[in-house]
Amino acid sequence: MTYCLGIILPAGLVLASDSRSNAGVDQITVVEKLTLFTQPGERLIAILGAGNLATTQAVITTLRQGLDAPPDPDIRTLFNVRTLFDAAELVGDTLRVATSRSTPYVEEASASFLVSGQIKGEAHRLFRIFPEGNFVEASERAQFFQLGETKYGKPILDRALARATTLDETAKLALLSFDATMRSNVAVGPPIDMLRYTADSFAPGQRDKFDEDNSYWRDLTGHYSEGLVRLVESLPPPP
Amino acid sequence: MTYCLGIILPAGLVLASDSRSNAGVDQITVVEKLTLFTQPGERLIAILGAGNLATTQAVITTLRQGLDAPPDPDIRTLFNVRTLFDAAELVGDTLRVATSRSTPYVEEASASFLVSGQIKGEAHRLFRIFPEGNFVEASERAQFFQLGETKYGKPILDRALARATTLDETAKLALLSFDATMRSNVAVGPPIDMLRYTADSFAPGQRDKFDEDNSYWRDLTGHYSEGLVRLVESLPPPP
Repeated sequence: MTYCLGIILPAGLVLASDSRSNAGVDQITVVEKLTLFTQPGERLIAILGAGNLATTQAVITTLRQGLDAPPDPDIRTLFNVRTLFDAAELVGDTLRVATSRSTPYVEEASASFLVSGQIKGEAHRLFRIFPEGNFVEASERAQFFQLGETKYGKPILDRALARATTLDETAKLALLSFDATMRSNVAVGPPIDMLRYTADSFAPGQRDKFDEDNSYWRDLTGHYSEGLVRLVESLPPPP
Repeated sequence: MTYCLGIILPAGLVLASDSRSNAGVDQITVVEKLTLFTQPGERLIAILGAGNLATTQAVITTLRQGLDAPPDPDIRTLFNVRTLFDAAELVGDTLRVATSRSTPYVEEASASFLVSGQIKGEAHRLFRIFPEGNFVEASERAQFFQLGETKYGKPILDRALARATTLDETAKLALLSFDATMRSNVAVGPPIDMLRYTADSFAPGQRDKFDEDNSYWRDLTGHYSEGLVRLVESLPPPP
């Protein structure tokens, strides 16, 4: 499985993914699911992938190879599309090609993506690309998108995430959402890759890895669990 | 959907179910999913059902009709089986009959159950009956079973439920688990039916209904959400 989370706020973006890839429980590996495409000062596009690893890698590599080719205004790339909507469409189209190449041979070749970031001339945005290649955009009313194992980590976001939450507070919530998920599904595993993007910075900003060796991660998850037990204790029992 | 939860503790049992039945989102009704079979002072058996409503009702009604017939030691009923293991087997067998009657005609006739309670001569117990009719028992290491929409409400149980938790504290945790579930899945709905069974009481004990009109429910869920936001705020943000 996989857990990817993208959150959009007036202050910017918080994007995070786990790193576990598994072909059965007896074969797990660590992979990077968060990829950045950056032109400093001009655009930053982050892509988070879930699903068949061959498909997600094919899509990311195809997008990257498009950037290595000599510039041609007639060929769409992540560095010449005008808006993030156009970038989402490019990712969706690339996904359709990759999936259709594999579908005759592979039982489950599907994948999905979050496409997020900012291109100069417009605000930062967040899109979710479905396995079919079509996509939806996050909004004030739908501030976050999840891919993969979405359920265990959703309640804390529903309760504590608000529009005015700061980037750092949101990053904390995202980590707690990953903690809830990793406790229940071993197919979601560390390290957690996280990007905090400040609106209008057009630069990668703060990118971090969190795992059991990270003292902040240990403190956060430990203190949260203890605090939650105390909070529940402080509420009166049913009559 | 449905959410049923059974928790076993040295102190007794906490059993709870939601009440929503739906045939598509445009047709929802309120049903009772928690059924009690009681011989005061002798035995209490609680059955919680999830899945196809025709199947769960057929199983419960068949079990109840067995009790209405003239007593015959050669015919197993919930009131003459010797142990709760035997009761679980009876429910599983009844489920197999009900499912096989419907399967040729119904696309998805499956159902599953929690069977819990206490029969004089042994300790209180908790079983989970799979749609195939086989079953497993809860233990010190697996203190709770869930049916239906299990994921949203699991993190709080994983974090806060301990072996020594009292019945009333556990009831509170169960309600918070239902709150997390009902916020995310509209196919799980009020009222919540809850039974608190005190070990060795052989009586229904405390049975309650909780919904939005219940002031304890409103206070609990409101104060929990506020407390959770304050707890998250009190933890330091990522470096």
